[in-house]
Amino acid sequence: MNMRTKVAIIGAGPSGLLLGQLLHKAGIDNIILERQTPDYVLGRIRAGVLEQGMVDMMREAGVAERMDREGLVHEGIELVYNGKRDRIDLKALTGGDTVVVYGQTEVTRDLMEARAASGAMTIYQAENVQPHDLKGEQPYITFEKNGETVRLDCDYIAGCDGFHGVSRKSIPAEVLRHFERVYPFGWLGLLSDTPPVNEELIYAQHERGFVLCSQRSASRSRYYLQVPLTDKVEDWSDERFWNELKTRLPQDVADKLVTGPSLEKSIAPLRSYVVEPMQYGKLFLVGDAAHIVPPTGAKGLNLAASDVCYLYRILVKVYREGRTDLLEKYSELALRRIWKAERFSWFMTTLLHDFPEADAFDQRMQRTDYDYYTSSPAGLKTIAENYVGLPFDEVE
Amino acid sequence: MNMRTKVAIIGAGPSGLLLGQLLHKAGIDNIILERQTPDYVLGRIRAGVLEQGMVDMMREAGVAERMDREGLVHEGIELVYNGKRDRIDLKALTGGDTVVVYGQTEVTRDLMEARAASGAMTIYQAENVQPHDLKGEQPYITFEKNGETVRLDCDYIAGCDGFHGVSRKSIPAEVLRHFERVYPFGWLGLLSDTPPVNEELIYAQHERGFVLCSQRSASRSRYYLQVPLTDKVEDWSDERFWNELKTRLPQDVADKLVTGPSLEKSIAPLRSYVVEPMQYGKLFLVGDAAHIVPPTGAKGLNLAASDVCYLYRILVKVYREGRTDLLEKYSELALRRIWKAERFSWFMTTLLHDFPEADAFDQRMQRTDYDYYTSSPAGLKTIAENYVGLPFDEVE
Repeated sequence: MNMRTKVAIIGAGPSGLLLGQLLHKAGIDNIILERQTPDYVLGRIRAGVLEQGMVDMMREAGVAERMDREGLVHEGIELVYNGKRDRIDLKALTGGDTVVVYGQTEVTRDLMEARAASGAMTIYQAENVQPHDLKGEQPYITFEKNGETVRLDCDYIAGCDGFHGVSRKSIPAEVLRHFERVYPFGWLGLLSDTPPVNEELIYAQHERGFVLCSQRSASRSRYYLQVPLTDKVEDWSDERFWNELKTRLPQDVADKLVTGPSLEKSIAPLRSYVVEPMQYGKLFLVGDAAHIVPPTGAKGLNLAASDVCYLYRILVKVYREGRTDLLEKYSELALRRIWKAERFSWFMTTLLHDFPEADAFDQRMQRTDYDYYTSSPAGLKTIAENYVGLPFDEVE
Repeated sequence: MNMRTKVAIIGAGPSGLLLGQLLHKAGIDNIILERQTPDYVLGRIRAGVLEQGMVDMMREAGVAERMDREGLVHEGIELVYNGKRDRIDLKALTGGDTVVVYGQTEVTRDLMEARAASGAMTIYQAENVQPHDLKGEQPYITFEKNGETVRLDCDYIAGCDGFHGVSRKSIPAEVLRHFERVYPFGWLGLLSDTPPVNEELIYAQHERGFVLCSQRSASRSRYYLQVPLTDKVEDWSDERFWNELKTRLPQDVADKLVTGPSLEKSIAPLRSYVVEPMQYGKLFLVGDAAHIVPPTGAKGLNLAASDVCYLYRILVKVYREGRTDLLEKYSELALRRIWKAERFSWFMTTLLHDFPEADAFDQRMQRTDYDYYTSSPAGLKTIAENYVGLPFDEVE
């Protein structure tokens, strides 16, 4: 079977769906291929803090109604070091910017529903997806659906299929340069239907390890503990998790903690990763397919949206104005913002975690970094402006 | 022979002399002991960038006349990364603060002359200086002068005798906590009677290693090259030095470089070091006796002055108001500012040097750090406010 579209999108996660929706609204025909089922995609528990830029993209895509109604606008975050609490007033420090707490699952659901309503095609359970002729004039993708091999011809391919997807692997190895940092610990996350311990997110350093008090809504909490990579989920009963969380939180916060049964519990390693370039011929890598950040700073989903923003703006100019010259600028434009967010995620991770190999000087530098950045108005502003998201460059 | 004074100062470098002069002006009797001759002390080639706080102290000590006449007020510095020049407008970014370029040798000379004129006692070539009874009510120092053993009774002892001095070594090892970072490179410095290549200091990253274009006056330049610790001064002819300097500087800067014979050439290792606490009974460590910074950021002399500032203010309140309770606050007060300057020196060193063991991720983080801090107004301000010197805490 043969099909044809303008933009073939590999992956129906939030970045693929967001790009598809934006292109569809702009009248640019696209098809999304996804290896999994919709339920599987929705089952992934991920981030839940949206930068203003991502919020704006959701609105531009026309899928912001529920987010605007149910999303929680956060005007600040809290940092804790050695038990001392410091509020970062995002709104005041940035001159008005905030973030919105709205789970990635909800973002994905809204985008899926909008896609279904739009009539644009998403092919789930597409197996053996394989891009071809990326450097040629006529790239295409082959995949299998219900045992039949399908050829999808297209102008461009957006690789939105995550770190383990086929897109990046389709680029010859000698073209790519990899940058990677693996951190010597993981995050144990617990999701529960309990009210969040604090109105705002709390990022807390503790000598026993980092803690994040996050949330998905006013009644659903997401907590994380820094744990050794050797730990297994089975090592952590709910009771042990809650006790450890209380131990690592300042007393006044711990006293307010409401515990409950876990809906989900998992351990994720922390990694910084970037591949360059993000373009190979007609293939464009988007989001996790090209870069990973440690979750400290909540940048993962927002960076996927950042890439979508650049690729979308470029493709609109390509189709409307014939500006094919812009295609070669995608990688540089996207990476400029990616690297700064990689820097911030690395900075926050380094600032707040316990590093087993740190010597006395490293430890004191960490504390002094914290003291400096939270005591200087300029230092506070660097944290705030990165947390809400740095500005986008113009596409022109 | 027996002598007596209120404050015995070990070391006639700039910190000992500045403290002595301030105390003398405040009517607090003091004696300075120095192992070397005045000429030896003056022969040390060191830093030459004074923070506003140090300038204020020199004025308070009444030794600012020549500094105010001959010192060069610098309203900015230049940073260079991969050949790209960025000016840090210190004055605009800090709301008016600047630094003064005035060689440490000149500071020392002015202080020596003022001390001689004041009639306060400085004992040079004092050998085998040894503090005693630091925890007792009546501390004293013994030393030998012209073969005779002298006992100097005092109320307090200021250890201004540098990293290798006897003061820190007089504190029982189990009392002290050491923090240290040794960097895997050194600085090769060259002093010459040539006009500086640039009106302002240039701190330049280069793939072949860091460069600093510094100066002592409008006709005396001081240049530094990052070199491997295995290099020897004999490896570096003047010609090789100038050629390497030109290679590492941006072309438009290199084109303006005026070369000439070296007056002095030496290699110094780079180290971060802090000892805690800075007080032991009646002994107070000041400056290099308690801490070392890598020279990137020009903090060494200024931190000595910072300690002098706190110790002086405390001693004045001790003698005038009987506030002996303040003595125990010296270490904490001094260290708070020391650590932040250690942080900045480490940050600048890490930002601009070539680290042999850095992997691709480290290198890109360095470049991204540079890009972020020099492109964000808040980031620029963090550099500027640290470079001119963070504010002092009140002594009360």
